[in-house]
Amino acid sequence: MTTLEECEDRDRVDPFAVTRAAFDLPPEIVYLDGNSLGPPVKGVREGVDLVERQWRDLLINGWWEAGWVDLPRRVGAQLESILGAEPGSVTCTDSTSVNLYKAVVAATSLVDGDILTDSGNFPTDLYVLGSVAEQTGRRLRIVEPDRVEEEIGGGTLALTQVDFRTGRRHDLAALTGLAHRAGAITIWDLSHSAGVMPIDLAAHGVDMAVGCGYKFLNGGPGAPAYIYVRPGLEATNPVNGWFSHQAPFDFDPVYRPADGIDRMRSGTPGVLSMAALEIALEIFEGVDFKDLRDKSEALTELFIDLVAEHVEVITPRLPSERGSQVSIRTADAEALIENLRTQGIIGDFRPPDLARFGFAPLYLSFCEVFRAGEAVARTLGFR
Amino acid sequence: MTTLEECEDRDRVDPFAVTRAAFDLPPEIVYLDGNSLGPPVKGVREGVDLVERQWRDLLINGWWEAGWVDLPRRVGAQLESILGAEPGSVTCTDSTSVNLYKAVVAATSLVDGDILTDSGNFPTDLYVLGSVAEQTGRRLRIVEPDRVEEEIGGGTLALTQVDFRTGRRHDLAALTGLAHRAGAITIWDLSHSAGVMPIDLAAHGVDMAVGCGYKFLNGGPGAPAYIYVRPGLEATNPVNGWFSHQAPFDFDPVYRPADGIDRMRSGTPGVLSMAALEIALEIFEGVDFKDLRDKSEALTELFIDLVAEHVEVITPRLPSERGSQVSIRTADAEALIENLRTQGIIGDFRPPDLARFGFAPLYLSFCEVFRAGEAVARTLGFR
Repeated sequence: MTTLEECEDRDRVDPFAVTRAAFDLPPEIVYLDGNSLGPPVKGVREGVDLVERQWRDLLINGWWEAGWVDLPRRVGAQLESILGAEPGSVTCTDSTSVNLYKAVVAATSLVDGDILTDSGNFPTDLYVLGSVAEQTGRRLRIVEPDRVEEEIGGGTLALTQVDFRTGRRHDLAALTGLAHRAGAITIWDLSHSAGVMPIDLAAHGVDMAVGCGYKFLNGGPGAPAYIYVRPGLEATNPVNGWFSHQAPFDFDPVYRPADGIDRMRSGTPGVLSMAALEIALEIFEGVDFKDLRDKSEALTELFIDLVAEHVEVITPRLPSERGSQVSIRTADAEALIENLRTQGIIGDFRPPDLARFGFAPLYLSFCEVFRAGEAVARTLGFR
Repeated sequence: MTTLEECEDRDRVDPFAVTRAAFDLPPEIVYLDGNSLGPPVKGVREGVDLVERQWRDLLINGWWEAGWVDLPRRVGAQLESILGAEPGSVTCTDSTSVNLYKAVVAATSLVDGDILTDSGNFPTDLYVLGSVAEQTGRRLRIVEPDRVEEEIGGGTLALTQVDFRTGRRHDLAALTGLAHRAGAITIWDLSHSAGVMPIDLAAHGVDMAVGCGYKFLNGGPGAPAYIYVRPGLEATNPVNGWFSHQAPFDFDPVYRPADGIDRMRSGTPGVLSMAALEIALEIFEGVDFKDLRDKSEALTELFIDLVAEHVEVITPRLPSERGSQVSIRTADAEALIENLRTQGIIGDFRPPDLARFGFAPLYLSFCEVFRAGEAVARTLGFR
């Protein structure tokens, strides 16, 4: 599939034409940066405005009468569907950084041993892991991504499923299985994978997971994040603010952690931002994640086919080894991204020499990706 | 001042008539719960909607072109004025719980010794202090509020300035001075005091402070919180997400903490919620905090005068010893609050037997407080 006609044919039978129509995207833009900030869905402005009117009209009673107090649980339930997680195992709270911190500290109180991660992990993950290692007297081992498998031992394994630079995807099922056989606790950061592929946390027995709401989940700039804890895992939350208490509104001076995932919450939820995320996640209702992944693989394949003979593609060619982004390496990466922007094609630059393109199957068409691939080749001077 | 006529006279010369007009409050409501959730200012809906349109139109570029990336610093600067803090010493980030956690862990890395707090502290503070004590092997000492002064020693002193139950106010200047003479680090939670009185963190040499954005700062339900670190204090952030790095967009695998207060940030800021807070704080521009406090004292005095002969007021009668709320103790507290609600007067109930009333001088009139005081007395069966 590398001709415009083939792309038009494919778009005509795209099962995601419906979700695509639900996004509020400027028609002239080909948006390949949904892996950094997803676009808004239609209805998010009205939904947030409704919350603001509730705030004005109900004031403090909005917490109960407008159901704000249940937002973390409601959004958590939406995320459980997206992540293949057990009912009551996910809550929406804090940022990915804070949630990762909580998860890793909790892990170190459950297992001895090193904290293992890879050098392709997102900076925030590396920083937080380093901080926890220092505070808990553990050794943080940072290995090359392709050496993780052989380095797995007891302790804590903390990885990001899809590498934000290269788009390389770890085999979550296999590494989780290996880690468990070695007695390790597994923590996955799903920021770059949730919303574009099946995850199936429950099926793979993942211990804890975190991720952000603003990339492929389209929750808005700085949308709140989430945390998953496998039911039955006795995780202790180090940042145990009042919303992690069994009964926050008892104002109990003695801490009694909530049952289940609520114990991983901290302070008062940010209602405006979380309401936007709730509306954004409604679009996933009824989505078949296998279909979504099929389209993701086809879009990335199309793009790679269009550009690979002209530039170094650092994203794995094997679909099972990549997420939903394609990264190319060229000394001109920054100029390329800038030039594409003038053509209405939005990717992004990651220093020193990477141009990244994210492919969100919910709203991208094959014709758009064709246009982008052609533009990359032409801009690099080859067509 | 305990007659309606006197209240009318006082309202006619109220320097806060202007700010009062800037709030979007239902006219039939007397809102005495701004110490729990402040009401919206006019313009907040339009302001948040603008951000959502920027999100749609600018997509990822909104971070720079719409200035979202500077929000924590801009809101921090607004808060510096409200808190009497040095330029560049406050940032807007996370929740109060998370920020307190960061501050207390930072303190324990600077000083040995116990963590001292009082039994009137807000539950989230008690829980977080307990968690940090356990993680760092410190002893948490929880003493009665009026015994704090004599118990101060080296170590960490973590207090909330105004007691959420009783409205009792600690002498921030005196206790900070005592603590410093004992070699302690001081951390103040200003959630129940910021926005209704002068604070003057810089003048008193406070080491660290935290507080929430949704009470007397009117930032909206679950608005983001803030953290202050005294310039020169070498505080290390345990939850060192990517936005606490010197150059987040370098995606540096090696952590290099930002200079100044930015090092206390964690993950990506929640733009929608923070934008609402920024708009809310604009109302404080040009406010004279001494005038604000004078009105706060007068409003609370009026209310106490109207109800004190009929019910037990547990808030200190001496203005210098209270914040901007009045709490009464009665076995009927829950029914009282419910009954008042049917009269359009909103206070709140705190188990088991407290009725709380918050007095926000920015938007409350003396006549409203008169109406509320009369209603409380009448509802309790005395008038």
